[in-house]
Amino acid sequence: MSRADAVAEMLYAKQETIVAALARVEGRETLDVSTWERLGMGGGKTCVVEGGAVFERAATNVSLVSGAHVPSAITEGHLRPDRVGKPFRATGISMILHPRNPYAPSFHANFRYFEVGEPGEEEWWFGGGLDLTPMYGFDEDAVHFHRTLRTWCDRHEGASYPDWKSACDKYFYLEHRDEMRGVGGVFFDYLTDASADGFERCMSCAADGVDTILPSYLPIVERRTDMPYGERERSWQLLRRGRYVEFNLIYDRGTLFGLQTKVNIDSVLMSMPPHARWAFEFRPEPGSPEADVARFVRPHDWAGSEVGARAG
Amino acid sequence: MSRADAVAEMLYAKQETIVAALARVEGRETLDVSTWERLGMGGGKTCVVEGGAVFERAATNVSLVSGAHVPSAITEGHLRPDRVGKPFRATGISMILHPRNPYAPSFHANFRYFEVGEPGEEEWWFGGGLDLTPMYGFDEDAVHFHRTLRTWCDRHEGASYPDWKSACDKYFYLEHRDEMRGVGGVFFDYLTDASADGFERCMSCAADGVDTILPSYLPIVERRTDMPYGERERSWQLLRRGRYVEFNLIYDRGTLFGLQTKVNIDSVLMSMPPHARWAFEFRPEPGSPEADVARFVRPHDWAGSEVGARAG
Repeated sequence: MSRADAVAEMLYAKQETIVAALARVEGRETLDVSTWERLGMGGGKTCVVEGGAVFERAATNVSLVSGAHVPSAITEGHLRPDRVGKPFRATGISMILHPRNPYAPSFHANFRYFEVGEPGEEEWWFGGGLDLTPMYGFDEDAVHFHRTLRTWCDRHEGASYPDWKSACDKYFYLEHRDEMRGVGGVFFDYLTDASADGFERCMSCAADGVDTILPSYLPIVERRTDMPYGERERSWQLLRRGRYVEFNLIYDRGTLFGLQTKVNIDSVLMSMPPHARWAFEFRPEPGSPEADVARFVRPHDWAGSEVGARAG
Repeated sequence: MSRADAVAEMLYAKQETIVAALARVEGRETLDVSTWERLGMGGGKTCVVEGGAVFERAATNVSLVSGAHVPSAITEGHLRPDRVGKPFRATGISMILHPRNPYAPSFHANFRYFEVGEPGEEEWWFGGGLDLTPMYGFDEDAVHFHRTLRTWCDRHEGASYPDWKSACDKYFYLEHRDEMRGVGGVFFDYLTDASADGFERCMSCAADGVDTILPSYLPIVERRTDMPYGERERSWQLLRRGRYVEFNLIYDRGTLFGLQTKVNIDSVLMSMPPHARWAFEFRPEPGSPEADVARFVRPHDWAGSEVGARAG
């Protein structure tokens, strides 16, 4: 089996576990499944909840695609010059959770594997990340999320929680708002290893990262999903989701690259929130829970946070 | 009075007429007004309705700004080389109407004047456009809108309805959806005239264009606003507004330039719909009124349309 096939097989297997867990949270037997295939290009499988009890939208997509020429957008400035424009294979899992309760944060994760070059002499690498977007800030949630990610990174030699955390803070940044999309998480790219068991090490790190999705997020949504809320909280949630839309459509390289390929617009835009809102000159009242979210969309060492140590 | 001041004075005066008309439609005495000023940069005035009876959002903004160096985004490939980076003044009116009734189309207009260069030797030009975005298609609305614009253009030597219409079809195009934002309208830029009364001619054409805003749109919203609708139509409206958001954040040069300047994010994003929605793999039923909108988001000669001749 080729490396890309091995990664894809691992991702499809883990997608089943994730889907089963989401279905359990949602109180359903399973999720809606949609598979797609493009002749000579590959295919994918998207599992979704739309309008669920816990998740207004939950979606996870795994795909394996290949092409005769690697798109420059993916490799610019990173690929060895002799690999530019060569055949490529790519596989990945992406996941987005937009819960209904405004106190429960949105969640996003993505893990991907690329190989570029003629068979037998491919350059390959892994990339990925997880990030959390609260509409209302809870220190203990941010701390739990970041500590779970740190624990994962600490298990793998090739991983660096501080570097990957800082890369995430930089990536999920709305320049026009001067704020992060949420409390960040980790983000890494071009993870490769030239040693004899390098591929296995990186694969194990990525697989362990995918296994981190559920424990990093489910405890949070479980403790928020029954909190009572009203129109005010819903309205604020939609406003914050508007900023999520702004990030995805203005800054997110994955979304913009996906839209350019025009292969499967629905899969590319599955990361969008189901509903969003924009208001003219709305400012939350100083000292309100809504205003407090500003504290969460700045870089902060949540994993090492004292507040978190108390709260956790 | 400088040319820019003369244009701004004209625009501020016409804004009052427009605001009075919108207030009348809305059954209010006036709109909410917000003015802004930045030291040494200029200022503006935004008049809005948020959550009105007819308009979920109506907003019009007039501004007059200046700077020591013209931003390259505005002039790239157009300005005489010796004007690049010179002082500039710019004034404009922009307007967005998102009615509540899903049968009433959204409307957008923008007129702007730029001058670049040292005092007395400025290069100057006008730009602008109007476009209409129906969520449900009505031939008579598209025909009325385009004929009103054609009548305006036909009154002015420097204007060309066919060219400006075609420029609009090209500009308001969502490449990833392969559809236009709506039924188009007109779009022009770098309108200038070197003859002795050239400025007066162009100014008169632009002023007449601003005067076209109300007659091109108000009759349409007036005949749609009392049409009964339900959840299905509202839901479809929000979905189509999601595409409006996609256009504004991915393609619209004005929005992206505005976000880069970070001067007044609220004014830049006032064009966003108040609510929007995204659904995974939703397709309207073939033959339904929702599916029929596809006929309206392709280039079509509405002004010369036979159907329109009957309907009008």
